[in-house]
Amino acid sequence: MPSFRVELGANSHSVHVGSSMLEKIGELSRKAGLAAGPCAIITDENVARLYLEPAREALLQAGFKPLVIEIAAGEASKSLPTLHQIYDRLIEGGLNRRSSIFALGGGVVGDLAGFAAATFLRGVPLVQVPTTVVGQVDSALGGKTGVNYREVKNLLGAFYQPRLVIADVSLLASLPEREFREGLAEVIKYGAIMDEPMLSKIEDQMPSILGRNESVLEALVDRSLRHKASVVERDEREGNLRAILNFGHTVGHALEAATNFSHFLHGEAVAIGMVAAAGISARFAGLSAQEERRLHKLITKAGLPTELPAVVKTEEFTRALGLDKKRAGNGVEFILLSRLGAAVTSKLGFEEIMAQLG
Amino acid sequence: MPSFRVELGANSHSVHVGSSMLEKIGELSRKAGLAAGPCAIITDENVARLYLEPAREALLQAGFKPLVIEIAAGEASKSLPTLHQIYDRLIEGGLNRRSSIFALGGGVVGDLAGFAAATFLRGVPLVQVPTTVVGQVDSALGGKTGVNYREVKNLLGAFYQPRLVIADVSLLASLPEREFREGLAEVIKYGAIMDEPMLSKIEDQMPSILGRNESVLEALVDRSLRHKASVVERDEREGNLRAILNFGHTVGHALEAATNFSHFLHGEAVAIGMVAAAGISARFAGLSAQEERRLHKLITKAGLPTELPAVVKTEEFTRALGLDKKRAGNGVEFILLSRLGAAVTSKLGFEEIMAQLG
Repeated sequence: MPSFRVELGANSHSVHVGSSMLEKIGELSRKAGLAAGPCAIITDENVARLYLEPAREALLQAGFKPLVIEIAAGEASKSLPTLHQIYDRLIEGGLNRRSSIFALGGGVVGDLAGFAAATFLRGVPLVQVPTTVVGQVDSALGGKTGVNYREVKNLLGAFYQPRLVIADVSLLASLPEREFREGLAEVIKYGAIMDEPMLSKIEDQMPSILGRNESVLEALVDRSLRHKASVVERDEREGNLRAILNFGHTVGHALEAATNFSHFLHGEAVAIGMVAAAGISARFAGLSAQEERRLHKLITKAGLPTELPAVVKTEEFTRALGLDKKRAGNGVEFILLSRLGAAVTSKLGFEEIMAQLG
Repeated sequence: MPSFRVELGANSHSVHVGSSMLEKIGELSRKAGLAAGPCAIITDENVARLYLEPAREALLQAGFKPLVIEIAAGEASKSLPTLHQIYDRLIEGGLNRRSSIFALGGGVVGDLAGFAAATFLRGVPLVQVPTTVVGQVDSALGGKTGVNYREVKNLLGAFYQPRLVIADVSLLASLPEREFREGLAEVIKYGAIMDEPMLSKIEDQMPSILGRNESVLEALVDRSLRHKASVVERDEREGNLRAILNFGHTVGHALEAATNFSHFLHGEAVAIGMVAAAGISARFAGLSAQEERRLHKLITKAGLPTELPAVVKTEEFTRALGLDKKRAGNGVEFILLSRLGAAVTSKLGFEEIMAQLG
């Protein structure tokens, strides 16, 4: 079981990656110093069906008294109304400042439960127990929490670090194929922006990855989270460096927003966004045509989409691009690749971007 | 103009205390590294009438383009609906991640604008420009932000440090007498918990303080904020030590809640709470009867109430005491004085407290 620390001063915490970890969440949480007694598990209906009982049992055995808050599965739950329902349940359940919130689920549960933990009683301890590839390699670590508002992803939110991240790769076995594959977009992203040898490894191991071999997944999740941790440690609140993690996300977010968050899974939109960003990188940042093709091919091999859909020609898309959180003055900060394994930030005008996307 | 730094690692910031500072807020903010361009001033109708124009002018001259968001004056504005109205205005105004929010007002404006800044786009720069004594000596510094929910003060909120605090004592000249005096409760609190000589000074200077002598006020605000900063520096998120700042606040909050936040001003409730806590301190923590009388007398001299009202005998009060954020397990963490100038924390059962209050 690989385990490491994310060093963030007062916000430092441990990360555990392994198989059959769900049964240990209570014990690991107590070891991390969290108080027994009342706590909350926030999860969605799909995850609950599979993993709520073992999670509850593990917490009960370690002395926790879990209140279960089940939300509807899907991005639509990342909303203020759902957040307020969570607040109401936390109050009715009598949680206090020392009570932990366990986020058991994918990115939606993690972001929403994280924001609830960040803002209830000015912050209660948060344990991230991601159940998807996206959650395990990306969103559970780094402290980004939030809800969508007025069609903008994460328009409201907070940086709030978990007290513990527990990534159990055994949970990935039950993931629907499409959701499994979307997570690979984020894995490929780390290779693209900071670890070219990782890309070779993913290329070689793709059959084992898609076959969900637990030890291969464990190594992949661990390597991904260590990359993410190294970036977050140097730039906790996305002052500058951390923005490289948004490679593929500017176009990706806009695609999701322009299609009402209902057409693409996040990782699918990011996959298309990475291909688009690689094209722009070839034009503006020195990425070679060969490298561009290699990335494109790997994304295809992971079963992810690469083609820009027609929606990029609509006003909704352009507006979504303009409303992106990363906008600063005129133009959009874009993350580009100078080569595979090295990212640069560049401010591009809307016209330059649209010319490339059109 | 006294100026000092609050040392909080990545969250460190400057504090300026002085007279005629409002005209300098733009210049000081630019010097603190805040980006010119779009920003927001959040204020209330009463403060706006007096100080909005000079504040806007100062920001315009320094290159800011302020959007003005005016809320209704009073505690009722510390609510989710008002927070959502603020979000809507920030979006419509096109604020981005580098845009600052200026909180121009008292504790309500500071807490509400602070929470908006903490949660809009996962946090935008915040400048606190407190216009009341409570704001200038207490709430503008330390990063506590929040709104009330289901009759519990600050049930929702975040720890979020401002990028700058500017306390202009000239603004206190226009404060209604009752609001001016309530702020003295927080000033007396610093003396009671950590600076006995400060109590002597306040006793001696009470006529000049009540006469709002600017240089006396400047020294008093500066001394108060330095005390607060020294505590917050050692315990940013109220793990333990910072709780001493809640002296008088446990009973105070419950009094406010049990009277629907409409009978007492915050500082008045704290004044009564401090007298009650001094009584409990004499019983449980070693405060002498003479010291208890001295504190009581000083609070009276400041024109603040000291008598427990009949509402303490109601169920609303008891429940409010139980719902206090500081509750942990059975009983309530109470801040007591072992002597004037020294605070201790003690867990007391409801019965012990009620016996003393009854």
